[in-house]
Amino acid sequence: MKKAFLIAVGSELLNFKSNTYSPLFASRLRENGIILSGEISALDDKKSIKNALVFASKEAHIIIVCGGLGPTFDDLTRQAVSEFLNTPLIYSTKIEKFLSSRYPDFHTKQNLKNQCLIIKNAKLIENRNGTAFGQVIRKGKKIYILLPGPRNEWEPMWNDVERFLKSRRKIFFKRFRFADLRETEVENLIMPNIKEYSSLQTTVLAGPNICELSITSESKRELIEAEKKIHKIACEFIFSCDSQTLEEKVGELLKKKRLTISTAESCTGGLLGSTITDVPGSSTYYKGGVNAYSNEIKIKILGVRKSTITKYGAVSEQTVREMALNVKKIFSTDCALSISGIAGPGGGSQQKPVGTVFICSVYGDKIKLTKKIFSNRSRDYIKKAAVNTALWHLYKMLK
Amino acid sequence: MKKAFLIAVGSELLNFKSNTYSPLFASRLRENGIILSGEISALDDKKSIKNALVFASKEAHIIIVCGGLGPTFDDLTRQAVSEFLNTPLIYSTKIEKFLSSRYPDFHTKQNLKNQCLIIKNAKLIENRNGTAFGQVIRKGKKIYILLPGPRNEWEPMWNDVERFLKSRRKIFFKRFRFADLRETEVENLIMPNIKEYSSLQTTVLAGPNICELSITSESKRELIEAEKKIHKIACEFIFSCDSQTLEEKVGELLKKKRLTISTAESCTGGLLGSTITDVPGSSTYYKGGVNAYSNEIKIKILGVRKSTITKYGAVSEQTVREMALNVKKIFSTDCALSISGIAGPGGGSQQKPVGTVFICSVYGDKIKLTKKIFSNRSRDYIKKAAVNTALWHLYKMLK
Repeated sequence: MKKAFLIAVGSELLNFKSNTYSPLFASRLRENGIILSGEISALDDKKSIKNALVFASKEAHIIIVCGGLGPTFDDLTRQAVSEFLNTPLIYSTKIEKFLSSRYPDFHTKQNLKNQCLIIKNAKLIENRNGTAFGQVIRKGKKIYILLPGPRNEWEPMWNDVERFLKSRRKIFFKRFRFADLRETEVENLIMPNIKEYSSLQTTVLAGPNICELSITSESKRELIEAEKKIHKIACEFIFSCDSQTLEEKVGELLKKKRLTISTAESCTGGLLGSTITDVPGSSTYYKGGVNAYSNEIKIKILGVRKSTITKYGAVSEQTVREMALNVKKIFSTDCALSISGIAGPGGGSQQKPVGTVFICSVYGDKIKLTKKIFSNRSRDYIKKAAVNTALWHLYKMLK
Repeated sequence: MKKAFLIAVGSELLNFKSNTYSPLFASRLRENGIILSGEISALDDKKSIKNALVFASKEAHIIIVCGGLGPTFDDLTRQAVSEFLNTPLIYSTKIEKFLSSRYPDFHTKQNLKNQCLIIKNAKLIENRNGTAFGQVIRKGKKIYILLPGPRNEWEPMWNDVERFLKSRRKIFFKRFRFADLRETEVENLIMPNIKEYSSLQTTVLAGPNICELSITSESKRELIEAEKKIHKIACEFIFSCDSQTLEEKVGELLKKKRLTISTAESCTGGLLGSTITDVPGSSTYYKGGVNAYSNEIKIKILGVRKSTITKYGAVSEQTVREMALNVKKIFSTDCALSISGIAGPGGGSQQKPVGTVFICSVYGDKIKLTKKIFSNRSRDYIKKAAVNTALWHLYKMLK
C-alpha cells in the first residue's frame, strides 16, 4: 500500500495545542488508497524540520508538510525544504501577480513579497483563504507537498492536491462499536476468526465499557467477508457500524418510535442527562431528570421508600428500580433510566466495592435491572462506564 | 535546556483519533526544566516504533513512549524497545505478585501474564488504574520512559516519573487560571506588562470561558515579580494559582463554610451536576438537582410560572431566576445554580442567537443573574462554558 507521512510544523503543537490534523489527512488519504503511516510534530526551527524530512523520506513516498509557510521570521518550512532537497528558492512572478491583484498595497509589504518565494520547479496550488500557496515537488520517486497550517486554508486546497496523488488502489475501511465488551474480549472473540484475511489491518480502541474495532483492507472482498463474520460472532454487542455514538443511536430510536425519556441519577450526578443532551435535537425526546445525590432527595423528590434504602442501601437493585419507575411516572415519559453506584475513591465496602453500579432501564412495562462492577477504575471512568451501560441497555430494549 | 521527545504509539492516532498528549506532556516536562522538542505518532507496528526510537534518540535525551503497553497482540512497544535497546524482555515476579493480588483469576489469564514482561533492569512504576506498569530504562546518557496509553493511567504515574528526570537546572513555574477572560484578552491585558522579564516563557491555553496562563523562568526573582504583576492586573479573574479546577475550588469553599447546593439545568442537561460531582467527597455539599429540559418539567417539577415562560421565554433572566430560587427551596439547600440557554446548532433567533445563556447563582439571600453569548461555538463548548460560568459566579459569591 502506498504510504504517506505527515510533518506538522509549529512550536505551539509541542507546547499547548493539540494536533488534530492526523485523522483529517488520514481519511482524505485513505480515499485515495494511501495509508498515513506516521506523523511528526516539529518545532518552528529549521534543523527540526530538516531532520523530520530526512526521517519521513525514509518512511514514505508522499511527504506532506503542513504549516510554517507564513510570511514571518518563524516560518521556516520553505527554507528547510529547499536545503533538504538541495534546490534553490526562486521568486514566483505568478504568485506576485495573484497577490498584487488581491492586495493593492502588495508592493509596500515585505511580508507579502516573502510569500512569492517557492522551491524551484514546484507546482503551485492556489490558496483562496490566505497568502501561502501550496507547493508540490517531485524528487525521484518521492512527492513533497507543502501546505499552509490553518485548516480553513489547506482544506479547500485538497482537491487540487489529489491530482498529484493519483494512486491506482483503493482502501476499504469499516468501524464497529461494541458495548459491554472489553478490549481483550473483542480480541479473543473476534481476532481468531478473521486472521485468515491476510490483507486486513485491525485496531482496537477501548473506552468506558465500550470498545471500537476498525478494520482496513485493500481487498473489498476480504473486508466484506470479515465484516459478515464479525456481525455473526459479535452482533449482540454491536451498537454502531459507523461513526455514531451510543447516545446518537438511542436518540435515533426514541425519535423514530416517538418516545420520551427521563433520568434519575445518583453517582453519575447528571452525566447521563448531559450525555443524552449532547445530541442536537434531543429535546424532542428528553424531558429531563433528577440528580438525587443524597438519600433525602431520593426519598423526597423521587419518592423512593425510606424502608427500601434502609433495608437494601442506596446502591441496590431495589433502589434503582424505584428510582426509574418513579421518575418515569413523575415526568410522564415512555422510558426511564436510573443509576446508583459507588464512584470512589471512598465509600466502598467488601460487599459493594468501589466501581459497583446498579442500573435500571424501563420501556413501557419492561424493566431491566443490571449490576456491574468496574474494578480498579477511576471516578471518571466509573461514571462514564455507568452512563454507557445504561444507554446500551435501553438501546437493546428499543431495538 | 534538556530535551525530551514523545513517541505516541497507536494506529488510531493515524486513523481517526486526535493526539492530545503533546501539550499535556509538554507542560509537565516544562515544570521539570525540560523542553518537548518533537513528537512522532507511530502505528501499532514494531518496525514503525523502532524507527521512531532511532529518530527520537538522535533528537533528545529523554524519550517517552506512550501507548502500546496493553496485553494484546497489537501492543508492541515492549518488543520494539527490547529489540531497539538490544536488551531482553524478562518476566517480573514483582508485577505478578501485584496483579495476582488484584485479580484473583490471574493464573488463568494469559493476557494478565503478558503484562509481567518488562525490559531487563527497567525501574517499574505502579499503575493504579490499569494493568500496564510504567518502565524506566537508562542506556548511556539516554532515558527511555514507557507509559500506558490511557490518560487516566499515565497521569497519576507522572509523580513517580519525575523522580527519574532530575534536571540540574531548576525551572520556576507558576500557573494561573482565569474565568470570564478570553485567550486574546489575557494576551492584551497581561503580556505587555510582563515582557520586560526576558527570562520568562509564557503559554496560554484556552478553555470554555476559562483560560490558563503558565509562566516559566530560570530566574526566581523575575518569576516572583511577574507573578505579583499578574495578580495586580488580573486578580478579579483568577480562580486558581495551582492545578485545582473551578469545581474543586467551589467545593472547597462549600465544605469550609458547611453549605449545601442544588442545581436546576436546562441546556446543559445535567453537565453542571456532573461537573460538581467530579470532585470526590462532593456528596457532603451537593444534594442534587433537576434537569428540566422541557418547559413542562420546568413548570411541573421546578414550579416555574407558566406566565414567566410565555412572557419572557424559557431562555431568560426571569426563568433562570425562578429555577434557581425554586430548586433551592425544594431541595432545602443554602446555595443554588441554574442555567438556561441555546446550545445549538438549531434553536437560535436574532434576539437570542445560538450561544445565548442565562445563569442564576443564589447564596442565602444574594442573587446574581448573568447573560452570556458564546458566539460561533460548538454545542459542546457552549455547555461547558455555561457550566464554568455558573461555577465562577458562585465562587465569587462564596469567596
